[in-house]
Order: sequence, then C-alpha cells, then structure tokens
Amino acid sequence: MVKVGIVGGTGYTGVELLRLLAQHPEAEVAIITSRSEAGVSVADMYPNLRGHYDNLTFSVPDTATLGACDVVFFATPHGVAHSLAGELLAAGTRVIDLSADFRLEDADEWARWYGQPHGAPELLSEAVYGLPEVNRERIRSARLIAVPGCYPTAAQLGLLPLLEAGLADTSRLIADCKSGVSGAGRGASVGSLFCEAGESMKAYGVKGHRHLPEISQGLRKASGGDIGLTFVPHLTPMIRGIHATLYATVTDHSVDLQALYEQRYANEPFVDVMPAGSHPETRSVRGANVCRMAVHRPQGGDLVVVLSVIDNLVKGASGQAVQNLNIMFGLNERLGLAHAGLMP
Amino acid sequence: MVKVGIVGGTGYTGVELLRLLAQHPEAEVAIITSRSEAGVSVADMYPNLRGHYDNLTFSVPDTATLGACDVVFFATPHGVAHSLAGELLAAGTRVIDLSADFRLEDADEWARWYGQPHGAPELLSEAVYGLPEVNRERIRSARLIAVPGCYPTAAQLGLLPLLEAGLADTSRLIADCKSGVSGAGRGASVGSLFCEAGESMKAYGVKGHRHLPEISQGLRKASGGDIGLTFVPHLTPMIRGIHATLYATVTDHSVDLQALYEQRYANEPFVDVMPAGSHPETRSVRGANVCRMAVHRPQGGDLVVVLSVIDNLVKGASGQAVQNLNIMFGLNERLGLAHAGLMP
Amino acid sequence: MVKVGIVGGTGYTGVELLRLLAQHPEAEVAIITSRSEAGVSVADMYPNLRGHYDNLTFSVPDTATLGACDVVFFATPHGVAHSLAGELLAAGTRVIDLSADFRLEDADEWARWYGQPHGAPELLSEAVYGLPEVNRERIRSARLIAVPGCYPTAAQLGLLPLLEAGLADTSRLIADCKSGVSGAGRGASVGSLFCEAGESMKAYGVKGHRHLPEISQGLRKASGGDIGLTFVPHLTPMIRGIHATLYATVTDHSVDLQALYEQRYANEPFVDVMPAGSHPETRSVRGANVCRMAVHRPQGGDLVVVLSVIDNLVKGASGQAVQNLNIMFGLNERLGLAHAGLMP
Amino acid sequence: MVKVGIVGGTGYTGVELLRLLAQHPEAEVAIITSRSEAGVSVADMYPNLRGHYDNLTFSVPDTATLGACDVVFFATPHGVAHSLAGELLAAGTRVIDLSADFRLEDADEWARWYGQPHGAPELLSEAVYGLPEVNRERIRSARLIAVPGCYPTAAQLGLLPLLEAGLADTSRLIADCKSGVSGAGRGASVGSLFCEAGESMKAYGVKGHRHLPEISQGLRKASGGDIGLTFVPHLTPMIRGIHATLYATVTDHSVDLQALYEQRYANEPFVDVMPAGSHPETRSVRGANVCRMAVHRPQGGDLVVVLSVIDNLVKGASGQAVQNLNIMFGLNERLGLAHAGLMP
Repeated sequence: MVKVGIVGGTGYTGVELLRLLAQHPEAEVAIITSRSEAGVSVADMYPNLRGHYDNLTFSVPDTATLGACDVVFFATPHGVAHSLAGELLAAGTRVIDLSADFRLEDADEWARWYGQPHGAPELLSEAVYGLPEVNRERIRSARLIAVPGCYPTAAQLGLLPLLEAGLADTSRLIADCKSGVSGAGRGASVGSLFCEAGESMKAYGVKGHRHLPEISQGLRKASGGDIGLTFVPHLTPMIRGIHATLYATVTDHSVDLQALYEQRYANEPFVDVMPAGSHPETRSVRGANVCRMAVHRPQGGDLVVVLSVIDNLVKGASGQAVQNLNIMFGLNERLGLAHAGLMP
Repeated sequence: MVKVGIVGGTGYTGVELLRLLAQHPEAEVAIITSRSEAGVSVADMYPNLRGHYDNLTFSVPDTATLGACDVVFFATPHGVAHSLAGELLAAGTRVIDLSADFRLEDADEWARWYGQPHGAPELLSEAVYGLPEVNRERIRSARLIAVPGCYPTAAQLGLLPLLEAGLADTSRLIADCKSGVSGAGRGASVGSLFCEAGESMKAYGVKGHRHLPEISQGLRKASGGDIGLTFVPHLTPMIRGIHATLYATVTDHSVDLQALYEQRYANEPFVDVMPAGSHPETRSVRGANVCRMAVHRPQGGDLVVVLSVIDNLVKGASGQAVQNLNIMFGLNERLGLAHAGLMP
Repeated sequence: MVKVGIVGGTGYTGVELLRLLAQHPEAEVAIITSRSEAGVSVADMYPNLRGHYDNLTFSVPDTATLGACDVVFFATPHGVAHSLAGELLAAGTRVIDLSADFRLEDADEWARWYGQPHGAPELLSEAVYGLPEVNRERIRSARLIAVPGCYPTAAQLGLLPLLEAGLADTSRLIADCKSGVSGAGRGASVGSLFCEAGESMKAYGVKGHRHLPEISQGLRKASGGDIGLTFVPHLTPMIRGIHATLYATVTDHSVDLQALYEQRYANEPFVDVMPAGSHPETRSVRGANVCRMAVHRPQGGDLVVVLSVIDNLVKGASGQAVQNLNIMFGLNERLGLAHAGLMP
Repeated sequence: MVKVGIVGGTGYTGVELLRLLAQHPEAEVAIITSRSEAGVSVADMYPNLRGHYDNLTFSVPDTATLGACDVVFFATPHGVAHSLAGELLAAGTRVIDLSADFRLEDADEWARWYGQPHGAPELLSEAVYGLPEVNRERIRSARLIAVPGCYPTAAQLGLLPLLEAGLADTSRLIADCKSGVSGAGRGASVGSLFCEAGESMKAYGVKGHRHLPEISQGLRKASGGDIGLTFVPHLTPMIRGIHATLYATVTDHSVDLQALYEQRYANEPFVDVMPAGSHPETRSVRGANVCRMAVHRPQGGDLVVVLSVIDNLVKGASGQAVQNLNIMFGLNERLGLAHAGLMP
C-alpha cells in the first residue's frame, strides 16, 4: 500500500486526486494539507467524499509528517513545490508535482513566463516530465515528476505522431484549444463566475500563455528541431474538458495518417485513436483518464487537423498524476483509473 | 459471475447501466438489445465506453437468448416489460425492470395513469418494489423487481422516517421537486433541446404526473393510512440530478428529527443524512448511488423541510437497479457502486 | 429628459440599469459612480455597452454632483443608501434604492435581519415600497423608493390576488423559490463560480433568508392579518430568472381563481396571467420587465399552486426601478421597458 | 410602414425576427406562415411574445396574401425559397431569404453542397448577398437578398480588411469557429438535446461544411484571387453566439493592423473593432446586431489571429435580415437594432 500525502488539497486538482485515490486499491491518503482549511474535515469541504475519507482532516503542511509518506502530490499554485520538494526528496519521499514548477527544463525560461526566479533550479536535472506516452521508462525510476499541464497534454499527444515521424512543417503549427472553466481553478475570481463564464465563449492570453513554452518544449524534443507554434486558448462554458484543435501542414502526402496514429498509440492504455472521420466529444472522457483523438485531412489538402480531447482534471492533471504513481511504484498502470467517462 | 442481459439499452438508463456494470467485478453484460440500433456496436454509439465493451453489439431482442441470462434489466419505455417479463421468468431468468410497468400494485390505477390496460396483471403479486431501504428482505428472493422512479426515490427516502414514526400530518404533504433534463430521456423532443431547456426553469405536469401515485403508494405503506400529497415537478437546466424539497407538518414538536433521520438510515450504505443545517447539492451525488439529505425546521415552526438529492440516473435508476442485483444475488451491496460523486 | 445618476454601477443591477436606460427616450445617465472602478470607462468594463455610453466613466461618488441629478439609483450593497439618501433628498433629488435599505418598514426588524443598526430610520416614513401593482399612486409622488427584492416581487405578485380576496389560509403559506445565479451578485465568491453553481441545484438559507420578512410584510398588508410563511430559496444553474412555486390552502372552493387572477392584473402592463393549465418558463421573461404567472389547483384539492416567473435583474430589480422612474416622472410606464424577452 | 410577411416562422430565426420586428417602428408583421402550426397563435407558441402579437396566428403559406406584402422573409430550410421567391418577385414583393438558397452564385456548386439541383437558377443573377459591409449599395435596390450564413458573417467580417488590403497569404487561411447550439435550429434531433450538447465540446463537419464554399466565395471576391481555406466548426454548450478564431499569414509586417481594421469599419454601425489586446466575448453581443472583433499578432510573428464574435441569431441571421430591410426601404439602418447586448 503506497502511503500518499497531498499538499494543497483544496483546489479542483486536489479533490479530484481524492476522488480517484478513494477507488485505488494500492494507495492510501495519509495526509492532506491546507493552510487556509487546517482543521476542516475533507468530507465537510467536499460532500461528494462523505463516507470515503471520514477521518481525514486538512492539516498545516509539515515536512516531517509529509516526509513519512512514500509519495507526496503537490496540488498547489506555482512556487510551493519549489520550496518543499527538495526537503522531501532528501527524506526519501518521491514527489509528483501537479503545478508548473518543474515542467520547463530551463530555469530562465521558467522565470520569464512565471515572473519570478525559479526556486529550485538544482532539482531540474532530475525532474521527469510525467507524460507516460513519452517518458514511461524514465518515470519508473523518477523521484520527482512534473505532471504536464492540461493544454500541453492534449496538444502534445495530438501532435506527437506527426512530429516524431518528421511529417509536419514544424514552423507553422497551430493549437486552437478550448477549455472548461475548471481549468481556471477554484479561486474566487470574477472571470470564473457562473454569470461571467456561462453562456459565452472567448479567447484569452492570445499574446502569450504559460503553456506555450511547455508545449513547444515537448514538440521540440519530438521533432528534434525548432518549433513555430501559435497557441490560442479559449474559455468554454463547461466545467470539465479540453478540446484541442491542432493544425499542421504535412510534408509527405503518401503517409496513411490513420495508421500512423493507431500504431503510435497501439499499446497506450489511456490514448484512444478513434476511427477515421470521427469527432471526439469532451464529454466522452468526463471523469476518465483518457485522451481521445481523431485525425482529419479536410478536402485531401496538405493541412492536417487533429482533434484531441481530455478531461482537464483527469488526464490533464490528477488522473495523469495517479498514472505516474502507478508507474513509479511498479503497479498496474490502470489501477484506479479504469472507469469509463460519465455520459451524459 | 452473474450473466446479465439488457433490453433497450440505447437510452440514458441503458448507457448508465453499462457504465456501472463495466466496473462491477461479479457481473458481466452478455446481451444488449435494441431494435433500432441492432448491429451497431456499443462503443460506436457510446464513445465513453470505448475500450470497455469492444465486442458488444446491440441485437434484436430475443427471449431465447435473453432467457439464458441470470438476470435481465429492462431499460425500456413502459409496456415492453409487460410483454416480455413473463416469458423470461418462466425460463428461470430474474427480471429487474427500470420502467414503470410494475411499480403500481393496482392494475387499474396503472391503467388510469398510463392510458392503456396493464399488460401483465398476473405478475403484480410477485413484483417487488425495489427500494432496498424499505424492501431489502423481499428483494433478496424476488424474481421480478420494479425499480422505483427517480422522483419517487428522492421523495420517499426523504419522507419515510417522518411517516414511519407517525410524526407528520399525512393529509397535506408537498413534494416540490426539481429534475435535470436527463430525466426526460434520450428521445428527440423539442422540449429537451439545449436551447429550450437551457438557461430556464419551469414546472410541468402540475395537474398530475405519473410519479404521484407511485410516491403516494409508498408513503401510504409507510404511514399506514391515506396520503394527501401535492407533487410539483420542475425542469432544471442541468443534465443529472434531482432535488426534492419536501414539506410536512409535524404533529409532535418534541422529537429530535436529526436523530430520527440518522437512526433510520444508520445502516444504509447509500443514504447519507447530513449534519443539521446542511443544504445538499445535487452535484455531490453526480454519478454516485447516493441519496443525500438534510432535515430543517425553519424558525422552529411546525413545518418540516427535508432536502433530498439523488442522481436521477444512478440512485434514481441504474445504480439502484444494480443495488437490487447485488442484493438478489447475495453479493456485497456496494459492489460496483462504491465510487464517489464527480465534483466539480 | 430626466437626468439620472447611478451609485454603485459595477454590479449586475448596475449594468442592467445602463442597458435599459440606453433604450429609454426620456432618461439620460449623467453620472455613474464606483469607488473601485473610478476612472474606468463604462464601455471598457461592460463591452456590451460599447457604442452606447462612450463618454461615460465611473467616478468617485460625490453628493454635490449626484445632487444635480433629477433622480439617483442606488445599485449598492445594503447600508450605502442609508448614508447618502438623506443628503440627496435634501438637495431635491429623488432616490430609487435597489438595495434592501428601505424595504422593511420597521427599523428594528431591519437591524435583526441585516445584523447592523438601521442607518436612516428617520427616512422610513416617507419611503415607498416600489411595487407598482400595489403602490402606484404613492409612487407617483414619492421622493424615496425602495425597489422590492427579486424573490419578494415574484412571491408577492403571485400571492396577492388570493390574499387580497381573503381566500387563503394565511397561516401556512409556502414559497419554494428557484433563482438564477446572478441573484448572488457580481462579487467574487467561491459559491458563485461556474464550477460550483453549474450543473447542480441546492437550497440555501432555509433557516431564514432576508427576503422572508420583506415578503411577509407585503403579504400582511395584502391580507390584513398575520402571515405564516415558509420561504425556501434555491440556487439554480442559470444566469437569470426566478421561478416561484407558491402553495396556499384556499378556504373557499367556489371561487374561479383564473378569473380572479386575470381581473386583478387586467390593467397591469407588466403582469401576464397565462391561460389555465400553463407552466411559465423563466426564459420567456429573459431581459423583459414582466412577471408571468399561472394558477393551478392540482386534482381539484384545496391546495392552490401559483407559478410565478420573473427575470431577477429586470422585473426583480433594474426594470422595476425604471418602471418606478416612469411613474414618478409622469412618463408612460412602458417607456424603455416594452421589449420582449430573449428566447431562446 | 413596411408590410412584412414571414414564411416559416416556427424556428429560431423566425421567433427572433418577430422579437426584433416587435420593436421596429417602421415595419409591421402582417402574415406569418407555417404548415405545421397553422392556426396556432404566435403568442401561444412563443410566450415571450405574449402581449406583442396577440392577433397574429400562423397560417398556411399562400402566395396571394404573401404577395400583398412589401417584403417577405424566408426563415425556412433550404429549397423553399427556390420554389416561392420567383412568384413573389413577380408580384412586386421583395424577398429577404435567410436560408442558403441564393447564397452561392454558382448553381452547380450549390447543387454539389446541398445534394439537390438548384431550384431557381434564373434568379441567381439578381440575388444580392446581404452583407451590408460589402454590398450596401447593391442592397439598396435589390429585390432578392440572400442573407449570409452565421459562420460566414463572422468569418468574412473578420478577414475582409486583411484580404481587401492584399496583406494575407490567401492559400492558407484557417477559420476555427465555435457556435452555440441554436445554430442547429429548433428541430428535434438527438444531437441538439440538452444532455447531448451540454457540458461538452466537439468539432463537426471537418471534412466539409456547407458554409465553406460561402465563406470562400466572399473571400475570393475580397482578395481577387483563389482562396485556400480550412474551416472547422465546433459545437459549444451555449445557446447563442459564434466565436470565430481566424488565422492568416501576413505578407507585409509593416502594416498597422489595428489601424487597418479600425479604418475599414469606421463607418459601420454594426461592426465594433475593439482596442488592441482585447478578447471579445460572445455574450457581449447576445441579442444584439453587432460583430465585435479584435486583431492580434502573437509574439510579433507573421501569423495574425482575428477574434470575431456575433450572435448567430442576430447579426448572423435575423438582425442582419432586418438590417437589409432597413437599407432596402431607405430607413435608418439602425431602426429596431440599436439595443445593447444582454449581459450577463
């Protein structure tokens, strides 16, 4: 039984971790911390969890008790894992960070995009980017995992087969991405109010979003060269889900893209390439740890359109984090994650 | 392993049965029928189930093959179970009917509310109303289960403790109930369109809804006398969920209602009485087989207000059906139903 | 042309006032104040108003300039109008207060429900409760209007005909009310987030909501006696709209309720009694200054069910405020308010 | 007073025409037809219009009475205007067709995309594409208007300034468009159900949507050359609104795009170019006849991103139709269309 700690469990990725781990037969949440909610029981804060964690109460973060866990998840704003991860690793506790702290390999680039110095550059060399479809072997032995962002998961998985095969013009990639509102977190902000985000659609961050360098980094590794990527995120009036519509110009028309995608992901438990002509719906992965996609080449032109959907809180965050845990601890990768999406 | 057949699996209760049974370790769906979708694979129709039922295809209903199952669920419009249940029972197959066919004990009353003669009055005497919180022992040995309706589940569970204890004026009960749109089914009707049901609220069926006699029947049994019930259902712009707001006049002010409710459901795995002063949210039971409730007596008056929420597709339909299966086949009642609600 | 000032125009009632007054041929917004947004242009804050108020900028509230207006609307939290109304009235400016400050006639009762002393008890005697269907004549000459709350508007209009006619048992009235989320205002609170209020339904404030004494006060006046009212508000996943489901026991079965309601409101420009058997939808009044209702007596019993819907921001707030302005300044009562609801 | 007839008024564009014309001081709806709803009063079908059209009843279409109108709107599926427009024009009645019947100038291309022969090719030469921002002068004297489609309106208005100025590589344009569900019409189809389209997002018609040739035709005229356009429509869980995210590669970096767009639309009453850096929200145009847009060049690269939003039922259909009416009859172009969007 893997003993789990969670730092910062009051946001949406935190409650989702709890929901998933409640069904996990080989992991047990021993500690969950929150400065603001210390002393409150998990079941009082999240009534959906009543009956599941009746003796679990938020506590003030404390590295001694966290260090007694086998693994600690960080479900915190950026910056927190920087300050605590090192100590935990030193105590022999493995760290799975759902925040952005260790996603970019370059500390300077991180500092530019996040507007503050990187707090733990000495850990970057051992941090593993936790996208199992790319880094499964490295994840197995990793001590520190940077769980990919939600947009980056959907975008990279959708473009990887093309780029790994060297089939796309990498100078003009476009990721037009639509996210549900839970991606903005559980903080009280006017923009995330029901009456502001409901019954409306808008783009945001067009001049530059923090997930842009993360996606570019992953695509650069896949293609082995520079990447010219335009990334436009949109806010969509739904709670969960990301729909990435990805545009790439193919350089070789003879390739069977459907076969390429199916082969690339044939052995992946959580990537589902749909039949040719399909249009994946985000609701088909609601609550499930699946990235579902379809590949199109409209009118037989040289522009490929990949449609890639995930639940931002599951395959885009907490589910992927549990998938990493399973890999790290030698468990069946599907443990706790095998359930189907909730539809309708 | 219980061998399961499903008749009429293309509606929302059908896909929800499939979702729940996909996680059930002791039940296996052998057959699923649909006249309209015969030949279509389940995964093509319900992409959330891709990877779960890849060899399962809708077939034309056939009592010979259905009769080879241990149990057959009917997820059909009313009238279908009337015509098929008898033959299956004769073949030794147990029947769990999610439709309204066997919910009312009186065939004439059924005929009045459903506008057609009862098709199998000879089976009424052995049909068991599948509300485990009332009929668990009878369910164990039942061959034919009438799964309660969604509103009736929320309303009865909310009022039972009061009525069983003889504490309410049974002549003036009110059930003001709010349902998500999935309660209207997956049929293509204008009233259930996104643009008709969205961003709006309305009552319907105020002059008389088919769930009224079903609720009254259950409350009559609980109280041992006549029932005067006003039932007003409302359509609410959400996919899943029923919120029943129940009003009853108490006749004895000295009783501790909180304790009464907690004791009544102390051993029930799927009823959760919240602490005094709580307001249950439907989302706390989204996807989960739970009825969550709270009891209020505003301003200390003699009117009791009970708030009772369920997911209409789970505790209000398919989850309760699986709960009945578990009881009928001597399994742990929580098998396949232990997961927490999806929140947010 | 009536010269209008608005205090506190950054909330939903503020922007709705601006939207309505932009179409009003006899009123002109001269000043709009907001401490937090001073210096920001209205069009920058509310892009739907771009092209309508291009020279209007939020300013710091200042009684001198406000006092130069013919009328000032308060679209503020409670307490603000208490402190400013007196000075404006002294300057000859009439006041239409959309907050709760002058709704209750009894300063002590106000203090109990709002948890602070009443800030201007000396003005209570001249404040007129701005429900035109009851107080039209008094409104004409009023200097200070207390615009009714949203729930109170829907509930009182729905019950008035019964109570004025002495036809209901006033000791056991029930108002089961469902509100869209905009009723909670534009403040950044977790409970109003899209991911908290969406796809869910809950009751709140069952033990006592501030609109309870306001409704009771109005019903008491209508009936001429004491009122026993149970009021249960619910939060519904829609932006606008209130659906009040009102329950009353009739004491005289011989009365034609449909005729009673139609006659009561025959000359009211903004109350629409639908044909017998109807179920009003909140969307039918979206954006419109209408209260639409239907009267039912289910199964011919002695319980009457009135369904009453409004747009909480229009007939429940800003539209009703403009209706008061029209009456106060001798204008056609329908000016600026004649448009139909937005459907779908 | 312009005497108006409406053919096929039971869909969303029909009710929206009625809503807009109810506020129009110079137009009067004399006839509205519907085969399926003949004899039903408009107010019974659309309760939002109660009090506005109390004597208007749907009638069976009849060219004699329609021919007595000054202008007839077709709010019908494609094919209907083909069969009736000629006769009306012969009777001296002008025709504003909201369907697709006369949008494509080439009858063969129309036949390919709509899967049936063009029913009135002889009228094509006089049909005017009713995009006032392009064809205002021709609209003035037109007898037959083809009102542009919803996606084509948002996409063309967003790209026109670039293409007219010859600034874009026209071989690789992308229109990633997101539509609310009302774009699918009021027909009872499973895909448009609340429980199917709600809380989810998907692309559709990626291999080829009927609005593709219409957009291409308009862009071809603007640029004077061939167009390579990839158009990916998406279904979004909101009732109204289209958000077009348009990608074009600029060929001249020295141009001030913000100034270009502002100048192009400086005199347009219904196009709003927002300040640089803006992100228009669809809700800002809800119910309003406005196309609101912003121009971005992310990271200063050569890819321009234009964000263009409309209400698909107003500027994307019925509002634009009324705008055409105003132009055709020499009225102020803003009559009946000057109101602000409904927000929230």
